[in-house]
Amino acid sequence: MNVGIIGSGQLGWMMILEGRSLENKYFVLDEKMGPAAKISDKYFPTDEYREFVDACDVVTYEFEHVYEKALLYAEEQGKLRPSIVPVELKRDRINEKEFLRKNSFPLADYRIAESFKEAKQYVEDFERSVIKSSTGGYDGKGQIYVKKGEKIPEAEEGRYVVEEFIDFDAEASVIASRGLDGEFRAHVPSFNYNQSGILIYNAAPFDDYGMTGITKRLMEKLNYVGVMGVEFYILKGRPIINEMAPRVHNTGHHTLQGSSISQFEQHLRAITGLPISEPELFIPSGILNVIGTSISKDQLMRILRTNHARYYWYGKDGVRRKRKVGHINVVSNSTEGVLRKIKDLIDIVYNGHVEDYL
Amino acid sequence: MNVGIIGSGQLGWMMILEGRSLENKYFVLDEKMGPAAKISDKYFPTDEYREFVDACDVVTYEFEHVYEKALLYAEEQGKLRPSIVPVELKRDRINEKEFLRKNSFPLADYRIAESFKEAKQYVEDFERSVIKSSTGGYDGKGQIYVKKGEKIPEAEEGRYVVEEFIDFDAEASVIASRGLDGEFRAHVPSFNYNQSGILIYNAAPFDDYGMTGITKRLMEKLNYVGVMGVEFYILKGRPIINEMAPRVHNTGHHTLQGSSISQFEQHLRAITGLPISEPELFIPSGILNVIGTSISKDQLMRILRTNHARYYWYGKDGVRRKRKVGHINVVSNSTEGVLRKIKDLIDIVYNGHVEDYL
Repeated sequence: MNVGIIGSGQLGWMMILEGRSLENKYFVLDEKMGPAAKISDKYFPTDEYREFVDACDVVTYEFEHVYEKALLYAEEQGKLRPSIVPVELKRDRINEKEFLRKNSFPLADYRIAESFKEAKQYVEDFERSVIKSSTGGYDGKGQIYVKKGEKIPEAEEGRYVVEEFIDFDAEASVIASRGLDGEFRAHVPSFNYNQSGILIYNAAPFDDYGMTGITKRLMEKLNYVGVMGVEFYILKGRPIINEMAPRVHNTGHHTLQGSSISQFEQHLRAITGLPISEPELFIPSGILNVIGTSISKDQLMRILRTNHARYYWYGKDGVRRKRKVGHINVVSNSTEGVLRKIKDLIDIVYNGHVEDYL
Repeated sequence: MNVGIIGSGQLGWMMILEGRSLENKYFVLDEKMGPAAKISDKYFPTDEYREFVDACDVVTYEFEHVYEKALLYAEEQGKLRPSIVPVELKRDRINEKEFLRKNSFPLADYRIAESFKEAKQYVEDFERSVIKSSTGGYDGKGQIYVKKGEKIPEAEEGRYVVEEFIDFDAEASVIASRGLDGEFRAHVPSFNYNQSGILIYNAAPFDDYGMTGITKRLMEKLNYVGVMGVEFYILKGRPIINEMAPRVHNTGHHTLQGSSISQFEQHLRAITGLPISEPELFIPSGILNVIGTSISKDQLMRILRTNHARYYWYGKDGVRRKRKVGHINVVSNSTEGVLRKIKDLIDIVYNGHVEDYL
């Protein structure tokens, strides 16, 4: 099959690496030749989006903020998997929230503000809240954390969601997959550590708290095909949906080591109509993201001397603050062991201070 | 680093797939563009072997029967890892045997015959024996199995080894690695099932029987850098070296699933001077080779419905008898479970009759 990937970042790159053993060709569409384009069978610039879609049997996206014309044309041609629906929900945070609320998914309390002025008024409804712009925004962009009565920094005019701040006990996520035939499978949940809205590290397994069931219902409601990542807050033993990502997800990179199947292969199986697999985690597994820093030879030697560590350097065209440029996989006989290794790796990669790179 | 691979078959292909996450470029030299060349950063035809070697920081080979001029030039330039030494031993089976014998490695009894006529005389020394041509020969090619007193089919003139037939209890192998600094690591042994001299399936773990220690001594003796596969016969609890392969090896493909590191990444780490890893097998793991047959969509669906099965299709330019065109990885909680899955897969791939495809 000819599989098209819209977007050429690290997610598409790992999709191609993990999907090479299946009998597919991989075509990539993007403005620039990112990591995925460089290892693809063919790269298409965005103005050739029709030729790209026409050349593919199935088209997927590695990121929801990608070239819209291509998404729409692929959808029109009946080739887009997952469909355009979850992308449209993600385009507008208000739609996403309203969709989830109407379908009784557990959410933090929120208000919809038609202007920034209105948003500032809603801040008074909560002790602590987060003002989130309705469009754009990932990796913590377009979010303002505020407390009742505090002075609020100015922001662009537009529509906003004001969301109650959840003082969570943990952040967690589920990486799940749904086949063309509606079959559902999920990797065991992970718990995640974010800073400034960016995933720093995570580890699996983590308790389920009902997250997998919620994810299953969500995917069925969307008649979803492919892999989805759903991020949750855990508060007093109950899961609250933070966000859904209609694609392979950074919190699923640990599935590259110690799992029976990676999220990337699972996604490709789902969208090409192959049977999806029942994932099994053989050993506790986690990752540390490499963000905003290059890695010296000396650092690399130290990273790889960490028992069982595996290194993924994405080969992006430059390193800058907040930019994910790689990650490191680690496994251990216990999640505590995984966390100890991650702590050691934070010392090696960030000299112990991740915050300096965000 | 720019890593050169001489040979563009499936071994080089998996090397590149597993090595993409390290910060290397991969250049491939071969007569034709095999699977590895198609996913390489640059392909060089054999007449450009000098340009190829000059463009590389380090050069390795995926197979010992490859373009000699390139091997010699890379060796001259100090870039060849492993060195030319084990290739030269492999070039001539007599040299290989004599090297191993002189260094007191356990071997089957053998005679060196300077002609086929002489070989036929030595056949009388053993109840059962194997006449092996001194040059060429892998996957069972150039081997004649004979019994004392039996009529011997004619063969080309040349030098031969006549080797006592070992009525082994098991065939097994060790995949081991040695770093630039002399550090040694080994994957846990596998046991192997060969038919007509071709690996059909294998599974790990298997008892060691001293094989790892022998392999370590062999690699030290050769001052070897990289991954080596050593095949053994186990007879009455003792290991006898059948063959060594100075490269990644078919009996190590199970390391692609259920292991902390694959033989391919380990090899690349070793030859590029990175720390090699202590391999851990998380769960019993095995493979079934796909030989001499294409796989229909229906077969693929059945293969992938086998719990945890992963499919590797090499994308060669044609299917013919005896040709390895893919393999299937399986894992299970026990080696018996792995073997049950392999048996089911033999039914799916070969309709139960592997021999028809050899």
